[in-house]
Amino acid sequence: MDLGTIIGFLLINILLVFGMGFKVGPFIDVPSMAIVIGGTCGAVLMAYPLSDFMKLPYIVKKIIINSTQDVGALINMLLRFSEKARREGLLALESDIESIDDVFLKKGIQLVVDGTDPELVRNILESEVAFVEERHALGKGMMENFASLAPAYGMLGTLIGLILMLGNLADPSSLGPAMAVALITTMYGSFMANALFSPAAIKLATYNAKEILGKNIIIEGVISIQAGDNPKVLEEKLKSFLSPEERAKIGGKEEM
Amino acid sequence: MDLGTIIGFLLINILLVFGMGFKVGPFIDVPSMAIVIGGTCGAVLMAYPLSDFMKLPYIVKKIIINSTQDVGALINMLLRFSEKARREGLLALESDIESIDDVFLKKGIQLVVDGTDPELVRNILESEVAFVEERHALGKGMMENFASLAPAYGMLGTLIGLILMLGNLADPSSLGPAMAVALITTMYGSFMANALFSPAAIKLATYNAKEILGKNIIIEGVISIQAGDNPKVLEEKLKSFLSPEERAKIGGKEEM
Amino acid sequence: MDLGTIIGFLLINILLVFGMGFKVGPFIDVPSMAIVIGGTCGAVLMAYPLSDFMKLPYIVKKIIINSTQDVGALINMLLRFSEKARREGLLALESDIESIDDVFLKKGIQLVVDGTDPELVRNILESEVAFVEERHALGKGMMENFASLAPAYGMLGTLIGLILMLGNLADPSSLGPAMAVALITTMYGSFMANALFSPAAIKLATYNAKEILGKNIIIEGVISIQAGDNPKVLEEKLKSFLSPEERAKIGGKEEM
Amino acid sequence: MDLGTIIGFLLINILLVFGMGFKVGPFIDVPSMAIVIGGTCGAVLMAYPLSDFMKLPYIVKKIIINSTQDVGALINMLLRFSEKARREGLLALESDIESIDDVFLKKGIQLVVDGTDPELVRNILESEVAFVEERHALGKGMMENFASLAPAYGMLGTLIGLILMLGNLADPSSLGPAMAVALITTMYGSFMANALFSPAAIKLATYNAKEILGKNIIIEGVISIQAGDNPKVLEEKLKSFLSPEERAKIGGKEEM
Amino acid sequence: MDLGTIIGFLLINILLVFGMGFKVGPFIDVPSMAIVIGGTCGAVLMAYPLSDFMKLPYIVKKIIINSTQDVGALINMLLRFSEKARREGLLALESDIESIDDVFLKKGIQLVVDGTDPELVRNILESEVAFVEERHALGKGMMENFASLAPAYGMLGTLIGLILMLGNLADPSSLGPAMAVALITTMYGSFMANALFSPAAIKLATYNAKEILGKNIIIEGVISIQAGDNPKVLEEKLKSFLSPEERAKIGGKEEM
Repeated sequence: MDLGTIIGFLLINILLVFGMGFKVGPFIDVPSMAIVIGGTCGAVLMAYPLSDFMKLPYIVKKIIINSTQDVGALINMLLRFSEKARREGLLALESDIESIDDVFLKKGIQLVVDGTDPELVRNILESEVAFVEERHALGKGMMENFASLAPAYGMLGTLIGLILMLGNLADPSSLGPAMAVALITTMYGSFMANALFSPAAIKLATYNAKEILGKNIIIEGVISIQAGDNPKVLEEKLKSFLSPEERAKIGGKEEM
Repeated sequence: MDLGTIIGFLLINILLVFGMGFKVGPFIDVPSMAIVIGGTCGAVLMAYPLSDFMKLPYIVKKIIINSTQDVGALINMLLRFSEKARREGLLALESDIESIDDVFLKKGIQLVVDGTDPELVRNILESEVAFVEERHALGKGMMENFASLAPAYGMLGTLIGLILMLGNLADPSSLGPAMAVALITTMYGSFMANALFSPAAIKLATYNAKEILGKNIIIEGVISIQAGDNPKVLEEKLKSFLSPEERAKIGGKEEM
Repeated sequence: MDLGTIIGFLLINILLVFGMGFKVGPFIDVPSMAIVIGGTCGAVLMAYPLSDFMKLPYIVKKIIINSTQDVGALINMLLRFSEKARREGLLALESDIESIDDVFLKKGIQLVVDGTDPELVRNILESEVAFVEERHALGKGMMENFASLAPAYGMLGTLIGLILMLGNLADPSSLGPAMAVALITTMYGSFMANALFSPAAIKLATYNAKEILGKNIIIEGVISIQAGDNPKVLEEKLKSFLSPEERAKIGGKEEM
Repeated sequence: MDLGTIIGFLLINILLVFGMGFKVGPFIDVPSMAIVIGGTCGAVLMAYPLSDFMKLPYIVKKIIINSTQDVGALINMLLRFSEKARREGLLALESDIESIDDVFLKKGIQLVVDGTDPELVRNILESEVAFVEERHALGKGMMENFASLAPAYGMLGTLIGLILMLGNLADPSSLGPAMAVALITTMYGSFMANALFSPAAIKLATYNAKEILGKNIIIEGVISIQAGDNPKVLEEKLKSFLSPEERAKIGGKEEM
Repeated sequence: MDLGTIIGFLLINILLVFGMGFKVGPFIDVPSMAIVIGGTCGAVLMAYPLSDFMKLPYIVKKIIINSTQDVGALINMLLRFSEKARREGLLALESDIESIDDVFLKKGIQLVVDGTDPELVRNILESEVAFVEERHALGKGMMENFASLAPAYGMLGTLIGLILMLGNLADPSSLGPAMAVALITTMYGSFMANALFSPAAIKLATYNAKEILGKNIIIEGVISIQAGDNPKVLEEKLKSFLSPEERAKIGGKEEM
């Protein structure tokens, strides 16, 4: 779980409340919320098939609770499996399957132990990666649509407020407060876009890249283990996925 | 038929009317509608050949009434055909053609039963897929152009209203109501873009991806049936098109 | 000639005049026109070499008077030529050249009759298609630049009007009319972008796609005729360029 | 030298001055110029390494004084060289080198006369083309950044003016003139973007395409001359770079 | 270290202060800073994993202190190594490793001296280049997100200020100053985007291109040295990476 999302969101809210002079009251207006939050959700609901829209809680969870994989530990584990498979044969890995946390790696090793055809192993694992990517793309696209629709509904709400206000100027002293209320929807829309959905869309894109990297390392490793490659060669191959700093953490002293 | 479009659109309208304080009267103005709706339609009419513009009702129907194919059921049907063709020969599929609902699958199986050359079968089916994609691209492009032109005509209407109002300030008390009317066109344009055309464009893109996926599954299946592939291999191949959740629904227990 | 462009443009103008309450007078201001129309043209003149700018009348003509090719009739003609060439030899096509309206097809058949090397025939025809595309791209790019510069000059004019007005507030009663005049340039810029140049740019893109499709059909047909392909095979090939509805119009009954 | 740039720029300025009612005084304000012109230049200076920024005068010169190559004359010259080289040998071209104006063609012919390896000739010429393209891309990118930063500094200046004005409302009669001054920076920014930098960026892109086309014709020609190709074949090859209108100007009567 | 960034930033600030009439006081407001600076940082913190966000100081350092490599000197060094290796063998380069400043070149020569397999040398160096590019892409992306979020938080702050002001119009004389304060956040956001983050993002992109060019020259050189290529051929190869002006500085007189 990455604390950045929560710390960042709290920071924004604390600073905005501080900027409001701790007067939160004037910024709460139920009809304005109805227009902006409801309108935006309605538009996204229109834009996606129901079955896709229903994945929203899954997407939100992904944004908040997302632990990036420890790629160094992953590579060390793959190297250990590679050495064991070379010494004791592929079937010896069966006893390790239980101890693997990563569902994707577990599936890969299971396939290898089951003696599945290497081509089929790669196909199965790669098509799974393609689906993870597609699911992330759905989430990212939805967040981006939320981020572009929220300010639009904010502006729509302000237009509604202005039209009602201007059409009824009997009491000039009410002009200011009415205008304030009209502007609240624009503020809601801007807040939703810039403090929720845009950061969420960027985060999903970043997480996606990291998760796909991890899964590609696993595929390379599993295929290499099945082929009986020299663990030394596998190490060089997998280290090419790492930044220089991360490489130092990999077991086995380097030669160069 | 996907209810999301209708539920979403109703939700937006109910919430906007609630946000208006249930006073809908001030938001209805016929000349404003003429400018925004008429102007936008006129501009789209200018932008497309008449024959393309005439496809608009077809596009609208596509957005509202669009049932996503049950991919699981489709794969099960292809597997059943594959097994039958293997046991009883390709001609045995002739009796099943009547019972196929999907026009595209029907055509594919008919071609196979007619003994068409496999290369030609693939060409005919793929060029049909290309045309479906092109037609969807036309629809999506049209919706996007509507979505970007509507706010422009809304602003044009507001400018017209402001110029008329400012040029004639004899009665200052009419300033407010005149300004309110001027803003109505901006509201119409924003509503059309964000509650109609943008969600419609996104939905067409999503549907397109799902429909093309279904058609590609059919092509793979039909070609594989004609080639007499082992149904087991076909199952593995087609399941690679599915998400993990959907795979569970496919007939035949998995081995791994 | 496609009536959509003219009908759409008339529709927009009628509706805007209706929206103006049939008071067109306040919307006509010569200095405003000078700034917006002149400024936009000046900027486009700056942006393109004179020789390209001079092609503007040709581009405008293309937008208004553009007849889409009857692709069905074109394919029928190619099939007829294909059959004749097979029966009576390539030279027999010489008598048909006079009757061909399409300049591009005429040139292709002429090259074939002249016994030009097939490779060179394809090169000559394809380079011609490339130039048609480039010329359309020039037109589309120019229209898009017009569409983005016009609102900018509209805003520039409004800023000029506002600065003059605000610097000289001696007579407060003139404030409204002066502001109205200032806004007129913004209206002109918006009108030019959304009722002229944006639709024109989209239309050129659509026409380009259709014209290139037609030319590619001709290239395929001419090459196939020169190679002496079976007309049946040519028919299948060319029909893959058509939508299902259009295919029905092609001569020769289908087999499937 | 292309007059369009200068005519267009003069036209814009004359029309704007006409639109100002020939009152230029209220539009000149030194601090506003400092903010917009200076701020924009400062930001571009921040954005590029000093060595790249220093190429600005070269880029400006390129935009104003740029003569498009006469492609027809170029091709005729290449054909003449081709014939001479065939008749009298490659060394006979040495006497023509002095008379060649185009530096790039001169270098190409010199390389051929020097007996350089054909592969190396092509590499040297192509890498030179790549550098011309890169230099143009730098210029275009710089102009685009100027065009997007100028309005931003215009708005920044207006915000500064508004804040100063609103914080000090002692004398209400100064409100108008102060607001006018505040708006001047926005006008400057808009003018710089739309009457200078945007057209300049488009022009560089257009010139780049034409210059690269000319250089590619030279490469094809030089390589073909070195290889001793038939001038007839070279003519057909080079004409494929031309539009139908331009082809008529090429020497030698066509056969088709 | 490139002085452009610092000179440009100082220039912008001096000119803005000049444009403010040297009255900086009205432009300093702590709650406004809290909203814009804090809000923007909070949103970027939300958008990136903590580990990526922590790289911010490294990115800032990169923007300010970045010395572009002297490509001419680099090529001269590679040519010297190439000659020495040819004369005295690859192992003779060991004594030069200490004197190499560039870490990347040092690593390359070390690998060659160690007798690493050529394929592996290229893989190791290329994957390092890929990581440099990725790290730069992260920095550029972060700067771009800062640049687009800062004006959004500026506008959010202004909306908050306006709502508070309009809801409490008891004392009309405070209207101006309150509005001034409200606008300050928009000014902060615009300043941050256009005087900090946008130029920074452009600069990172430019530096990235130059650094990658240098690293690719090193890879070509190291591989060529290992392969024992003729230094003359290496010189021609490496000079293709240079502009005509830079080529003159390379040692060895040219032949053409």
